[in-house]
Amino acid sequence: MNQLNVCLSPALIPLYNVEDHIVVIIDIFRATSSICYGIENGAEAIIPVSLVEECAAYREKGLDYLLAAERDGKVVEGFDFGNSPFSYTKEKVAGKTVVLTTTNGTHALHLSRAAKKIVIGSFLNLTSMCDWLKLQNDNILLVCAGWKNNFNLEDTLFAGAVVEQLKTGDFKPDDAAIAANDLYQLGKHDLNEYLKKTSHSERLKKLGIEKDIEFCLQVDLITAIPVLDGEMLVKLQ
Amino acid sequence: MNQLNVCLSPALIPLYNVEDHIVVIIDIFRATSSICYGIENGAEAIIPVSLVEECAAYREKGLDYLLAAERDGKVVEGFDFGNSPFSYTKEKVAGKTVVLTTTNGTHALHLSRAAKKIVIGSFLNLTSMCDWLKLQNDNILLVCAGWKNNFNLEDTLFAGAVVEQLKTGDFKPDDAAIAANDLYQLGKHDLNEYLKKTSHSERLKKLGIEKDIEFCLQVDLITAIPVLDGEMLVKLQ
Repeated sequence: MNQLNVCLSPALIPLYNVEDHIVVIIDIFRATSSICYGIENGAEAIIPVSLVEECAAYREKGLDYLLAAERDGKVVEGFDFGNSPFSYTKEKVAGKTVVLTTTNGTHALHLSRAAKKIVIGSFLNLTSMCDWLKLQNDNILLVCAGWKNNFNLEDTLFAGAVVEQLKTGDFKPDDAAIAANDLYQLGKHDLNEYLKKTSHSERLKKLGIEKDIEFCLQVDLITAIPVLDGEMLVKLQ
Repeated sequence: MNQLNVCLSPALIPLYNVEDHIVVIIDIFRATSSICYGIENGAEAIIPVSLVEECAAYREKGLDYLLAAERDGKVVEGFDFGNSPFSYTKEKVAGKTVVLTTTNGTHALHLSRAAKKIVIGSFLNLTSMCDWLKLQNDNILLVCAGWKNNFNLEDTLFAGAVVEQLKTGDFKPDDAAIAANDLYQLGKHDLNEYLKKTSHSERLKKLGIEKDIEFCLQVDLITAIPVLDGEMLVKLQ
């Protein structure tokens, strides 16, 4: 029987043998949602980086990169756009390579590097990704990117949504997978309402990204699955 | 407003400023349950250690220590008893100092060492401990000892039970505290039934400690609160 494990914080990744797993990276607000939407909309590739400075360095490479960087919810001066999924439309990203600054997401990706395969999950591509995972007949590790290594509720809720779709299959869930799925049972009828009680919903409100949040909580808007290929996320074929 | 934080694994303790918190150590099956019961029953002190060898070393000290060590659910030869709460009765421990081998619990204790105060929690002393915590007007960090740094459901469920009693007070819960409390809502009507789905309930069954499990899930059997004093856990006065 294959394992279905949920890693509640990147700080716990070393507890797992990632080399025996397909890893799903989860950073619902907003990195992995924007990545899924951008790949769906024809971005040739998305390159995740940790720091604004790393992102800026791509400008020097002279190629036709789109650079995405935010600080405190605002696009950093000199950059093309920020992390809002609304920036990742066909008009903006089709045929382009986007360099996306995401501290938590990149951290989770780097620590999972030894995995058999790394894909990117969000509510936007939930069922499509679960259908693909079911076909792999392999161990699965759902990695919640969290917030500065802390547990967060939205990434865990999404992990629970994946467990919900996979649990009828031939998987053995660990305790974190069981807990995530139970939390999803409580929140699934109204994800947005459930997440209003999180510790950082006020921070998100202050950033003025409530529309982004609503967008990121749409289930099955798209079908593309981003997969890591070297340093780049591309569309899984 | 004081913080009410839940640390879901000892590996996450470094994320918190433990020196600004009162820490509650939680290892429901069975270390902290046995410690609470032993202190209630008049043990003068309980000394938690990580390894069977450290426990054995107390024999050399020539004093009247009771030594508790288990491997695979059985008392190690030459030791007085194991980790079953049924060994921590008045008849056995009153007036004695017990050296208790607990890998996960000791690990959590050591990483929390800088805390303002460290107390020991279990369902057995739940309300008594919560009443005391309410009076402290301080930040609280509930540390789940887990299993080899992994998240586990029973310690998280207990953290959720503490949040339940404190949440009407002047506390700001973090996301992990909110999640733990939600899980407790699902499990509180029948803790034992809820925990049957955990990944290691089969392991516990194989160890033949189902009666211990039932014992550890009794709510408010006692009122004693063990507190760390140097290397020893003693009764909070």
